Amino acid sequence: MADKPTPGAGLRGQSAGSTALCTVGQSGSGLTYRGYDIAELADKARFEEVAYLLLKGKLPTQAELDAYITKIKGLRGLPAPLRAVLEQISADAHPMDVMRTGASMLGNLETEERFDEQQDAADRLLAVLPSIICYWYRYSHDGVRIDTETDDDSVGGHFLHLLRDAVPSELHAQVMSVSLILYAEHEFNASTFTARVCASTLSDMHSCVTGAIGSLRGPLHGGANEAAMAMIEHWRSADEAEREILGMLERKEKIMGFGHAIYRESDPRNAIIKKWSKRLADDVGDSVLYPVSERVEAVMWREKKLFCNADFFHASAYHFMDIPTKLFTPIFVCSRVTGWCAHVFEQRDNNRIIRPSADYVGPDARGWLPIEQRD
Amino acid sequence: MADKPTPGAGLRGQSAGSTALCTVGQSGSGLTYRGYDIAELADKARFEEVAYLLLKGKLPTQAELDAYITKIKGLRGLPAPLRAVLEQISADAHPMDVMRTGASMLGNLETEERFDEQQDAADRLLAVLPSIICYWYRYSHDGVRIDTETDDDSVGGHFLHLLRDAVPSELHAQVMSVSLILYAEHEFNASTFTARVCASTLSDMHSCVTGAIGSLRGPLHGGANEAAMAMIEHWRSADEAEREILGMLERKEKIMGFGHAIYRESDPRNAIIKKWSKRLADDVGDSVLYPVSERVEAVMWREKKLFCNADFFHASAYHFMDIPTKLFTPIFVCSRVTGWCAHVFEQRDNNRIIRPSADYVGPDARGWLPIEQRD
Repeated sequence: MADKPTPGAGLRGQSAGSTALCTVGQSGSGLTYRGYDIAELADKARFEEVAYLLLKGKLPTQAELDAYITKIKGLRGLPAPLRAVLEQISADAHPMDVMRTGASMLGNLETEERFDEQQDAADRLLAVLPSIICYWYRYSHDGVRIDTETDDDSVGGHFLHLLRDAVPSELHAQVMSVSLILYAEHEFNASTFTARVCASTLSDMHSCVTGAIGSLRGPLHGGANEAAMAMIEHWRSADEAEREILGMLERKEKIMGFGHAIYRESDPRNAIIKKWSKRLADDVGDSVLYPVSERVEAVMWREKKLFCNADFFHASAYHFMDIPTKLFTPIFVCSRVTGWCAHVFEQRDNNRIIRPSADYVGPDARGWLPIEQRD
Repeated sequence: MADKPTPGAGLRGQSAGSTALCTVGQSGSGLTYRGYDIAELADKARFEEVAYLLLKGKLPTQAELDAYITKIKGLRGLPAPLRAVLEQISADAHPMDVMRTGASMLGNLETEERFDEQQDAADRLLAVLPSIICYWYRYSHDGVRIDTETDDDSVGGHFLHLLRDAVPSELHAQVMSVSLILYAEHEFNASTFTARVCASTLSDMHSCVTGAIGSLRGPLHGGANEAAMAMIEHWRSADEAEREILGMLERKEKIMGFGHAIYRESDPRNAIIKKWSKRLADDVGDSVLYPVSERVEAVMWREKKLFCNADFFHASAYHFMDIPTKLFTPIFVCSRVTGWCAHVFEQRDNNRIIRPSADYVGPDARGWLPIEQRD
């Protein structure tokens, strides 16, 4: 037997293709979508505009945006067989398993037969993924069969409306829009790369997105905001949080929501969502969770020079909007599906099957061993 | 706007990690699983033995093999919610969409909660994937709800039994075993790499396998045997086949089942399945499809120095066993799931998240454009 494999490099720093969608961590601007800085997009655009930018390559005119929103609003219904599938999944299932199964089932019902259907397939997924997760959630948790065809103008508003059975406030719809913009695209992260590998076999859009959901499910990728929430919700004051964090650092425990594989100095998304978390804290009269979050940020920087990534203040922001923690990562899906699909378009446009090599570290060639001679 | 991206290199020749499972196209031996030559495995092993070798790292003793087969036989039942999901999928669905959805649904019902459950999760998938595809096929095509818990000793025998509602002949069970051995593992092909990217986020086994099925669905990956069948079944004689192939070559049409991304001189799996296809042709008294296949092989070599890959004679072999063409790629899944799961074990054992970089070819940083100024 050969040596144990050396740690996999994870292709870090190796180019696996080209993209016109996004820069991550380049000097001058931390994160851009098609050249537009994330801070400006979060400040001035609405999510549907950013989805259009990513999927169609340019910012829409007012008429184009209106038409796009009308299209998305018309694609929120769930076919009966998909509802039947979601009703088979119990309340204790992992919500990302539900998302993955919902996306896959949709592929049976509305198969992307040819690549000239790709824009429609992407728009349908963008519109219907919030319906999928909320239909399952409300059915399995509340025992109700909701009508997923709402008149909300925004993807985020639609999600909150289905979840809470009420039209959301303007503030909440706005925060959802910002959050979906921040999560929409991030270059060749593992879930997007999964989608591109799948696309490189010329498979269909639902396979690509289903695979990407499965990768985003992993705790090293999506889910950091859920883990951050699970941590901070236990602490009743900033001082308690500081004591606990110092203990965790001393015990070398992993603290979720900090640092990043690519960013070195800061995550440009943090300042944006932090500001909105503060607005929501003021709105609900919070005097615990936001101060706890701020203190954790300060202690992590003071002790370890580790900065908050996009996930950390998302935890408190979502919590202030009464979103159950287990739906945090599914919201990520509802946003990132735009980036995934845009990357599938790119991969198809200039494809070569993604098929790397491996370093063989196994046994040398050896002869057959009859079964009675084995041990 | 920057230049159009240059053709993606597809990571060809770049190492994305290490493996002890398989060598492909190394000098001396065309294909080995853990050091054992594919020809010897196909000749002397049964598929369940090879599955054990891949998943557990060594050839089993007789007692170990017997216990493993008993375990697999006990894992063929479909939970009621999974049956209900499969019954929602119509007969005209893509069978790979059915496989992908079935594997994903199983993840809701039998979630792999911790990595020490990985062997059980893999064994369950190995046992139940034939049940999933056959239950759907028989329900949607024949209107019957089959009992998937058969007493067949082999995975291939189980599949044929469910499909045809009869215990298969020894010859057919043997050919299925050989076929499943040939397809079981092939290093960092696109579907296996998909599974490893997913695994690298520390996601669960069902996500990894679901994603891999989606990638295998692509016509550049799985499905070549189906495409070969669709081609050769139209021809009534070897002479007609030769005329047609020459015409296709002249028109530069793609001919499926020939050549390979890695092998340069031959695919070591071809001689093996070709021999079995001949045995089956004799068994059924075929005087068309096998001679057609042989002639196509000869013409392609004479004209283009292109050799048959594993898929080409699989087409006729499966056809002689009365397997519907649309189930060829799902059989590939029932085999390759062993390789996929073994790669997931390896990735987890020595993990770093697979997160490559990209070459940015998009627009330079640019300022926001208010909606009324756009065109």
